[in-house]
Amino acid sequence: MKYLKNKQVKIRKKSDYYTKTLKRRTSSKATIGQAPGTPVYVGQKLDKELYAEVFDYNEELFTEEQLNDIEKVYPYIDSKPITWVNINGLQHTSEIQKIGSYCGLHPLVIEDIVNTNQRPKLEEYGEYLFVVLKMLYLDSENSLVIEHVSLILGKGFVISFQEAEGDVFDPVRNRLRANKGILRTMGADYLLYVLMDAIVDHYFHLIDEIGNKVEHFEDKLFDKDSDESFTLEVQALKREVLRIRRAVMPLREVVNKMEKSTHSVISEKIIIYLRDLQDHVVQVNESIEIYREMTWSLMEMYMTAISNKMNSVMKVLTIIATIFIPLTFIAGIYGMNFENMPELRFRYSYFVLLGVMVVIFALMVLYFKKKKWL
Amino acid sequence: MKYLKNKQVKIRKKSDYYTKTLKRRTSSKATIGQAPGTPVYVGQKLDKELYAEVFDYNEELFTEEQLNDIEKVYPYIDSKPITWVNINGLQHTSEIQKIGSYCGLHPLVIEDIVNTNQRPKLEEYGEYLFVVLKMLYLDSENSLVIEHVSLILGKGFVISFQEAEGDVFDPVRNRLRANKGILRTMGADYLLYVLMDAIVDHYFHLIDEIGNKVEHFEDKLFDKDSDESFTLEVQALKREVLRIRRAVMPLREVVNKMEKSTHSVISEKIIIYLRDLQDHVVQVNESIEIYREMTWSLMEMYMTAISNKMNSVMKVLTIIATIFIPLTFIAGIYGMNFENMPELRFRYSYFVLLGVMVVIFALMVLYFKKKKWL
Amino acid sequence: MKYLKNKQVKIRKKSDYYTKTLKRRTSSKATIGQAPGTPVYVGQKLDKELYAEVFDYNEELFTEEQLNDIEKVYPYIDSKPITWVNINGLQHTSEIQKIGSYCGLHPLVIEDIVNTNQRPKLEEYGEYLFVVLKMLYLDSENSLVIEHVSLILGKGFVISFQEAEGDVFDPVRNRLRANKGILRTMGADYLLYVLMDAIVDHYFHLIDEIGNKVEHFEDKLFDKDSDESFTLEVQALKREVLRIRRAVMPLREVVNKMEKSTHSVISEKIIIYLRDLQDHVVQVNESIEIYREMTWSLMEMYMTAISNKMNSVMKVLTIIATIFIPLTFIAGIYGMNFENMPELRFRYSYFVLLGVMVVIFALMVLYFKKKKWL
Amino acid sequence: MKYLKNKQVKIRKKSDYYTKTLKRRTSSKATIGQAPGTPVYVGQKLDKELYAEVFDYNEELFTEEQLNDIEKVYPYIDSKPITWVNINGLQHTSEIQKIGSYCGLHPLVIEDIVNTNQRPKLEEYGEYLFVVLKMLYLDSENSLVIEHVSLILGKGFVISFQEAEGDVFDPVRNRLRANKGILRTMGADYLLYVLMDAIVDHYFHLIDEIGNKVEHFEDKLFDKDSDESFTLEVQALKREVLRIRRAVMPLREVVNKMEKSTHSVISEKIIIYLRDLQDHVVQVNESIEIYREMTWSLMEMYMTAISNKMNSVMKVLTIIATIFIPLTFIAGIYGMNFENMPELRFRYSYFVLLGVMVVIFALMVLYFKKKKWL
Amino acid sequence: MKYLKNKQVKIRKKSDYYTKTLKRRTSSKATIGQAPGTPVYVGQKLDKELYAEVFDYNEELFTEEQLNDIEKVYPYIDSKPITWVNINGLQHTSEIQKIGSYCGLHPLVIEDIVNTNQRPKLEEYGEYLFVVLKMLYLDSENSLVIEHVSLILGKGFVISFQEAEGDVFDPVRNRLRANKGILRTMGADYLLYVLMDAIVDHYFHLIDEIGNKVEHFEDKLFDKDSDESFTLEVQALKREVLRIRRAVMPLREVVNKMEKSTHSVISEKIIIYLRDLQDHVVQVNESIEIYREMTWSLMEMYMTAISNKMNSVMKVLTIIATIFIPLTFIAGIYGMNFENMPELRFRYSYFVLLGVMVVIFALMVLYFKKKKWL
Repeated sequence: MKYLKNKQVKIRKKSDYYTKTLKRRTSSKATIGQAPGTPVYVGQKLDKELYAEVFDYNEELFTEEQLNDIEKVYPYIDSKPITWVNINGLQHTSEIQKIGSYCGLHPLVIEDIVNTNQRPKLEEYGEYLFVVLKMLYLDSENSLVIEHVSLILGKGFVISFQEAEGDVFDPVRNRLRANKGILRTMGADYLLYVLMDAIVDHYFHLIDEIGNKVEHFEDKLFDKDSDESFTLEVQALKREVLRIRRAVMPLREVVNKMEKSTHSVISEKIIIYLRDLQDHVVQVNESIEIYREMTWSLMEMYMTAISNKMNSVMKVLTIIATIFIPLTFIAGIYGMNFENMPELRFRYSYFVLLGVMVVIFALMVLYFKKKKWL
Repeated sequence: MKYLKNKQVKIRKKSDYYTKTLKRRTSSKATIGQAPGTPVYVGQKLDKELYAEVFDYNEELFTEEQLNDIEKVYPYIDSKPITWVNINGLQHTSEIQKIGSYCGLHPLVIEDIVNTNQRPKLEEYGEYLFVVLKMLYLDSENSLVIEHVSLILGKGFVISFQEAEGDVFDPVRNRLRANKGILRTMGADYLLYVLMDAIVDHYFHLIDEIGNKVEHFEDKLFDKDSDESFTLEVQALKREVLRIRRAVMPLREVVNKMEKSTHSVISEKIIIYLRDLQDHVVQVNESIEIYREMTWSLMEMYMTAISNKMNSVMKVLTIIATIFIPLTFIAGIYGMNFENMPELRFRYSYFVLLGVMVVIFALMVLYFKKKKWL
Repeated sequence: MKYLKNKQVKIRKKSDYYTKTLKRRTSSKATIGQAPGTPVYVGQKLDKELYAEVFDYNEELFTEEQLNDIEKVYPYIDSKPITWVNINGLQHTSEIQKIGSYCGLHPLVIEDIVNTNQRPKLEEYGEYLFVVLKMLYLDSENSLVIEHVSLILGKGFVISFQEAEGDVFDPVRNRLRANKGILRTMGADYLLYVLMDAIVDHYFHLIDEIGNKVEHFEDKLFDKDSDESFTLEVQALKREVLRIRRAVMPLREVVNKMEKSTHSVISEKIIIYLRDLQDHVVQVNESIEIYREMTWSLMEMYMTAISNKMNSVMKVLTIIATIFIPLTFIAGIYGMNFENMPELRFRYSYFVLLGVMVVIFALMVLYFKKKKWL
Repeated sequence: MKYLKNKQVKIRKKSDYYTKTLKRRTSSKATIGQAPGTPVYVGQKLDKELYAEVFDYNEELFTEEQLNDIEKVYPYIDSKPITWVNINGLQHTSEIQKIGSYCGLHPLVIEDIVNTNQRPKLEEYGEYLFVVLKMLYLDSENSLVIEHVSLILGKGFVISFQEAEGDVFDPVRNRLRANKGILRTMGADYLLYVLMDAIVDHYFHLIDEIGNKVEHFEDKLFDKDSDESFTLEVQALKREVLRIRRAVMPLREVVNKMEKSTHSVISEKIIIYLRDLQDHVVQVNESIEIYREMTWSLMEMYMTAISNKMNSVMKVLTIIATIFIPLTFIAGIYGMNFENMPELRFRYSYFVLLGVMVVIFALMVLYFKKKKWL
Repeated sequence: MKYLKNKQVKIRKKSDYYTKTLKRRTSSKATIGQAPGTPVYVGQKLDKELYAEVFDYNEELFTEEQLNDIEKVYPYIDSKPITWVNINGLQHTSEIQKIGSYCGLHPLVIEDIVNTNQRPKLEEYGEYLFVVLKMLYLDSENSLVIEHVSLILGKGFVISFQEAEGDVFDPVRNRLRANKGILRTMGADYLLYVLMDAIVDHYFHLIDEIGNKVEHFEDKLFDKDSDESFTLEVQALKREVLRIRRAVMPLREVVNKMEKSTHSVISEKIIIYLRDLQDHVVQVNESIEIYREMTWSLMEMYMTAISNKMNSVMKVLTIIATIFIPLTFIAGIYGMNFENMPELRFRYSYFVLLGVMVVIFALMVLYFKKKKWL
């Protein structure tokens, strides 16, 4: 019971959080009136330093570096082996602009990299491919975080931009270090796929969490002490499902477009992997749709639960009132003060009356038993 | 009545089962962080041995073998007559990998064969066609089982992979043995069609079962002793319908794609059979949609049923209270102790009053009769 | 009133019928495990003999025959004039197979002719066109019958297969006999169109019947004695609408496909008539959609009707209780046995109190009048 | 208030009317069994004579005639200037057939002209274009009339067929007479556009009327004396919205098809005007969709309104009962006849008790005030 | 609390406003019967003078003028540098016609410029591109204003037409004056994009406002003193959301069409910016859809809130009645006047009875505690 209570409180806090972030996402006064192409970071300002990880590898070589100066990254990009640069901290817009112009990124691309409101998309530019996705995970407080991730696929390199450091890419890092699988034998496009796959794999966690919440609410429906917060929590869950849906739905089109791309940085042999990725994305979308329907049903179920409770309250009232009101009336009759009420004088009339009352009582109880109210 | 009760309990247990399997299907932590192409079996671990059936046939010849060693299957595949290999037990990933590489299957295909979460699809590869479907049936405890089935159609052979042995393919086996119909005169593509047809035919059973449940719930709506579990059971039925829908819906596209395929392993004369299969798939989908609508209506009907019950409870209360409260008031009047209440002294006033009360009672009853409350 | 009651009972019986037929339609264990192409009749077994009508005609000639032996039909098909063969009784699978093979029909076509679960469709074969539709009509007991009709359009002949004799084609027969209109001057494709048109024309009857039912339910909503059966009847109506929709919806595609067909048995000048037929089909579909929406609204309306009734029950209770409970309390005060209650001894206090009670009563009544409860 | 009452009555009558017309529209037993191409008028039989208006004009010339003999119209059609023939009265099928065959119209076209159930469509024939639309307006009793209008656009002439005379085309007549705008300088195709535009312009009136009704119902929701008729009236409004939608929706496709037409009677410079017309049609459709959603919301709002009312009824009952039942109990205590009840004998106990009762009463009132029930 | 009340009142006034404007938008009797191409201003008549701003610029030059005479604008349009003419006041139809014919605009274009009911669209003409959009903002009274904006993109100039002066374009003016960004180095097509971008950026404000309202209603759901106005306010919010949707939805198609346009006034390098604009439009649409779902949920939540309240009212009544009715009955027993009631004479029977009553009371309270009603 305690567990549930705590959970409820946490969900509530989260719902506030969601409402806020939803609004933050849709509006951003900071950007109104800005010239297009001006990169404006609209996420939360963290005062951590920009922090870039560089992985430079091919089948034989492997270098891993952690740099705070963006310019030190350039040689790796230019070097022959495949390079993965992972940049954490979107608030450092000027540094992102630096590396952007070094790689020849369009100003609008740089704007999209730092604009955490940008929805998932794929864009092809002359020399590179630009992918935006959303990383979904639960933070240490178990609340949903939607993180903005951008990926640049150029000739022989991938640059990834994240809002903050996270461990979603850890399996990729480990596979690079351990030279497990075919990752180090493939090109940069396979790296891009692997990174996207790591993100999509994480979606399944969230789907699970939504499933747990739906179940939790289904259990709670018939709690005796469920109160008004239920409605608000279900509304918050609806909003959460809609947000996840919005983050995940466009991915279908992104992967589809990538499959059909004829851009030079995408090689033919990657298509088969993208098809696999597409399968996963479709599977996530289908699960979200199912949970969406289940969530929407919750309010209806709650309504019937309330009505059921009200029905049982009414039954108690009705049974008590129906039994005692007629009996009280009979007692009232013999409480009248008429001078000529012959019954009052008979010796056993009081006891006879008590007997009659017991019989009436018993008949009433039987009636309610028959009606299944008792 | 007893039957219903038992049924209800069973459904409940199943609903737990469904919730669990739904979650199992959508998430699979085991696979997160795995390199793509690593086959990971996420179904239930059964410790049965891998068990392969081999049917090698043409119009004249017919061989049937049951083998536990996967390597003994190879000669049959290479042999001239049509070969059907049915492999039971997806947990034996290493053996599946062996036969996979013998037949030149792509690692992602092998991953999909053992990944029971994979949704139905058709994929064309250079030398073979890969089909994933879901076998739906009721187990001995009458609960829904969604089994993952993969089919490989190569030149002159079909390999089918099942989670566990089942009898869905029995009619096909019998037709092969009995040389009934045209099955043994046709190629491997016809065998593929026949296997898919056997699976789709089984869907109709399930549709029936859903129909029975909807009817059962419709009957139960007006049971006097229906309780809160009703809502949960309908929710479980909704989930079940959604799951079946998810397993069956993609088949439409699969068969459609197969019809239009120009892959060398698909011959022209099979198209007409695929069109027939498509008809059946569409018919299953339509039935599911109808039951979906019926199921969604159930909650609404339940709501009106509760309200109807509450209405009748209220009527009982209202009738009793409305009749006796005024009468009790009258008795109260003559129970007052004023010294000067002339009526109290008249000889027949008590009996007159009793008569008045009877008249009031009768009028009230008439009033309620007229209002159809009695 | 009596009329309505009877109607209700009939509808109920029909609803049972529908549920049964719906299930029968979707499943057919008889066919599970059968080799594809095996004709299995899944409708009701009637023991009537097969009965074939033959119309052989052109502008000048006209022959009408009724035959029980299917082989006697062959010469008419081969003869030069246009031939219409109408075969009643799908349970005679062997005879249908005979004529099928005489005309060179594919085994799957013969299977579809006798499979009453087959949904409407058009298929083009080398020498002929195969059309499946559903004939909808009300039987003598006013219940909906969905009859399976197949039409074969070959060079110079049309063969129609019906489950049982019916009068839907009567106008066509009469026009043939009377040589009215252009029917006898046109080819077999025009005959096909005329037969389909006769079937579609009959749909309008059913739409009417659905309209009557919806209206009947709307009237019944506010009946004082409507009971629980209402919900079940509306559910049955929903199911009926869904079934009709399923039978009629695919026709749109069928006629569309026929319009665009380039098959040799379809002549150019028929297109304009098919466009007209398409118009009718679209019109039927639109009407069904409207009645669907109206039917779905019925439950909502019923819910408000119940709530309205409950509201008026509550008002009666509230009025009575609110008036008499305070008055009873006052009477209770003066029924107390305190020795020192000065009011009891005043001469007119009893009458004053009665007056006070009348005033309270009047005020209460006024209050409820103002609140529009009375 | 009186206004509203009247309005309500009228709406009710209209709703009957709608139901009837809806049924009339969807079915028409008269036509069942008729050979295709037989013109059957299914609208209301009016015994007015056929009445044809002829406008013959070009930039310089202008002739206006009103004729009762259809054959007098022929010379105008053949004459060089643009001719507009407006024929009122579809029940004169034989005369319509006459002019139809004079202009070379297909029998099916003539059937569609008099078949008032025909849905809006555009059909291209060799020499002419055939357009069906619905004229929507409110008659003198303020009820919705859906009138069937057919337009034939031939080389240099337009023939319009109406069920009855109306003033929808009056602005066009006036513009022709006054030689205002470019109308007399343009061809027959522009005249067709102008006539269609006049009809579409009139739709906006109806949209307005629907808007008024929705508002009227919103106001009525909280009327104290709203009764059961509300539900039926909303249902009638739904039906009305669905009917208008059905009449207007297909226009989108009609105008679209006309824009893309390459028929010789449509000149290039008309396209720009058709685009404008399309804009209006889309706008009407959007408004209908909005009112549809608003109308569907009404029932839900009504349900909450009923529940709100019931809630306030319950509160009154609860307040009265909760205050007086305990007080009555106390009075009952001291009405008991035990011989040894010391309180009865104390001098001021009666007055003390009255005081206690007043205090209890006050506390109860405060409690309800705090709970906001008072 | 006061804040909320005020807010509510304001919303109500706005809702009236919306209803009115919705009707104004959909109908416009003024235009019925007008010849197509006649410009009729259907917005509110303001008696401000026409007021044109002219910006003439290229990378080096910059001129800004404010003119009241439309003819003074002509030289700027003809001049070489890029020209932006912003015309405020659509009621000056004659002056708009003047500049329209000077620039060679089609009469229908001029009609659409002043017709504030025109929905967003893009039309390509020989020499220019015509864009209609809706500017959405909150006026000083915080009510939604939907302003009609038309943009003409010709060779080297953009003319914008607004209903009234506003500050939505201020950032563009400032960027022009300050020569910030690339605006002054780009062509007229970039200016068009920048103006559209400024309008779309403003949509985010509105989305925010809708979000605030939804939240406000969610908070208000459980207010003790929420009343009937809630339903009407939610209905008004629904209508507002639908209106915004209607204004914004067509933009998707407009921008899409512009991206694919091959018109000479659109240069290739603008495409990338239009894609960015498309992203924003999609984002706005998605947010509207989410708020739409949230808004539609509000009524359902409100319904459960009412039911919850009613449930708690019923509980109070039931507790009081269930406790005191039996006790009153017992008191009634001993208030009877039978001569032979032995208990009445025992010494302590009164006190024993009081004790029994206390015990019954306590048991009842415990029972309700156990049932969680207290």
